[in-house]
Amino acid sequence: MEEKIKKLWDETRELSLGTSPQIPRLETPPRALEFLRDYVSPNKPLIISSSAKCLFPATTLWSSPDYLVNTLSASPVSLHLTPSGNADSLTPISPHSLCFASPHVENLPFSEALSKIKNSALGENSVVAYAQQQNDCLRLEYSAIAADIEDHIGWATDALGCKPEAVNLWIGNEFSQTWFHKDHYENLYAVVTGEKHFLLLPPTDVHRMYIQDYPAAQYHYSKDTGEFKLELEDPIRYVPWCSVNPYPSPDTKKRDMARFPLYFKGPKPFECTVKAGEILYLPSMWFHHVRQTPDSRGLTVAVNYWYDMRFDLKYAYFNFLQSLACSRVDVKDKEYQCLKSCDASASKVENGLDVVHLASGYDSDVSDDVETHEHSVCP
Amino acid sequence: MEEKIKKLWDETRELSLGTSPQIPRLETPPRALEFLRDYVSPNKPLIISSSAKCLFPATTLWSSPDYLVNTLSASPVSLHLTPSGNADSLTPISPHSLCFASPHVENLPFSEALSKIKNSALGENSVVAYAQQQNDCLRLEYSAIAADIEDHIGWATDALGCKPEAVNLWIGNEFSQTWFHKDHYENLYAVVTGEKHFLLLPPTDVHRMYIQDYPAAQYHYSKDTGEFKLELEDPIRYVPWCSVNPYPSPDTKKRDMARFPLYFKGPKPFECTVKAGEILYLPSMWFHHVRQTPDSRGLTVAVNYWYDMRFDLKYAYFNFLQSLACSRVDVKDKEYQCLKSCDASASKVENGLDVVHLASGYDSDVSDDVETHEHSVCP
Repeated sequence: MEEKIKKLWDETRELSLGTSPQIPRLETPPRALEFLRDYVSPNKPLIISSSAKCLFPATTLWSSPDYLVNTLSASPVSLHLTPSGNADSLTPISPHSLCFASPHVENLPFSEALSKIKNSALGENSVVAYAQQQNDCLRLEYSAIAADIEDHIGWATDALGCKPEAVNLWIGNEFSQTWFHKDHYENLYAVVTGEKHFLLLPPTDVHRMYIQDYPAAQYHYSKDTGEFKLELEDPIRYVPWCSVNPYPSPDTKKRDMARFPLYFKGPKPFECTVKAGEILYLPSMWFHHVRQTPDSRGLTVAVNYWYDMRFDLKYAYFNFLQSLACSRVDVKDKEYQCLKSCDASASKVENGLDVVHLASGYDSDVSDDVETHEHSVCP
Repeated sequence: MEEKIKKLWDETRELSLGTSPQIPRLETPPRALEFLRDYVSPNKPLIISSSAKCLFPATTLWSSPDYLVNTLSASPVSLHLTPSGNADSLTPISPHSLCFASPHVENLPFSEALSKIKNSALGENSVVAYAQQQNDCLRLEYSAIAADIEDHIGWATDALGCKPEAVNLWIGNEFSQTWFHKDHYENLYAVVTGEKHFLLLPPTDVHRMYIQDYPAAQYHYSKDTGEFKLELEDPIRYVPWCSVNPYPSPDTKKRDMARFPLYFKGPKPFECTVKAGEILYLPSMWFHHVRQTPDSRGLTVAVNYWYDMRFDLKYAYFNFLQSLACSRVDVKDKEYQCLKSCDASASKVENGLDVVHLASGYDSDVSDDVETHEHSVCP
């Protein structure tokens, strides 16, 4: 099966996506018909370089030092706080285990939120703040500036046959990143200031993400102590999430490459930088990992338009592919087991932390106590 | 695997195609964008009821008793002759074996061709004639009447981004039918007079067609004896072809249902009748079986427009799906074996007829000499 799935990865690239990791670019926006035929229907990403018109005057106004603060003034906004800039991502919750960690969300006046974002940093007792409330927030919390940018992208709306379901604003700095995941939306991602750096994998490559169930946990931040506490949800709840960190630290790189060979040894992910004034069409179901570079003020500001996707043949094929076990891989770490494939299923295990331990096997200490065994890659 | 593939059949229907065997209809032609978004991109058939405009004046002229003969007069055309009306289909070549039989092709003046088509019949020493040269024949052999019908379908050309690669004319009567197969084209199938009856299966259902390699054979018709001779090509050449006859005779029905359970016990095929003045959008890669009912003159006349398909994600998914063995089915006929999955591959077998025998196991006599064994469904 592994060879057949690998052939699918290759064929998708050879026939349609291209074998270079670059994303095609158009200088000017496509006609709706062309966008639909050449990108949406074949589920193929695209960058439009000169999209400034539909992002105007946001591209000018939002870059000025005081405009956002003056206009939003005391508007209360949602700010996501984490100690390391990884919201909605896998995080160690004990020496032996990973969880799916959601950020602490604070509601505070925009001016305070913005200074917290600017002051984000890594280090001891650090706080990384990211305005990334994905609930149509541009038209809700940020309604005072919503008119600075088109409320939909004309050619995309015509092509997709509907207006966006949600329009979200993102304000962060270089310390915030978004872990590999996919969305069930057609996504038009417009960068207003700064730059966004995307790693992209097509849905055909689902097995390369090593999706597993992780227990959900929540960060709680205390202003008094300036410390974060990470707590598992009670009752325990599992979230299927991508296991691969594409930028492992030097300490974990070797282990990660051995654990996730389909990712690290497969075709290079597609890669692109989306600059201010550019729009990325990020097709539905594509896995994406996002980092950012701030502008001279220390901010990256972006708006994404989520359009409803069609749940059609491509989606059915994806579900079918995902239902297949890709390969039996030697894993030199008996702790690295997939909950979905082993008997110790969540419902049979009483102790939450034991489950966590089984689900992630994060602990590198156990690597000395190895036992080679076959492991069927999930899902 | 069988359960997962069956789930794919169901999910494709539930999400996109619908669970009834009917094909959706539009009263009037769609806009290009709508056609692309709602039918081509999701690979979904459609009938357009009032397409008369782009088929005019053919729908009027070609129905008149003498117009075709008068206009085409002595134009030489290609006529396909078979004893049973099954061109390009599986046919017994010996008591024990099936082959892929191509028709005898004769080049003769249109008036003679037309009277042979009208006189087609089944029975001893019968000849069934079908004008079905699929080489852009409307614009070649039938150029004298090509201007009676649009040379492309405007909204389809806009949607697909190109003009048709081929436009073919089909003239036959009720004795000609087309065996299940698929084309690597987007197909706009316009009926001008009479009716066409389609059975349709989506590409996801490829395993239900039991595609196997059959040896190619050719009909040779002798005017002197009025008899057909069916001869295997030399050197032997294999053609992968659908094994299922959806309309088995009462004699073979029970055996066929036991041999092809994925077809006969799976979801009903989609089914439609396309009437004069209607157009069927037959999406690329869909398996289709076609029969016809003639008009009052005893003729069915149709034109199909083949547009280039996109070899994109859907095609890659199809190839992947097709590469998987669906199931191990009990086959109570040890002669029913698939060449692709058994050791006796074509290259190892010297005697062509032995190969035929292995490939098809057509002989029903052996059913008394049964031995239940597991058989991996090809491809």
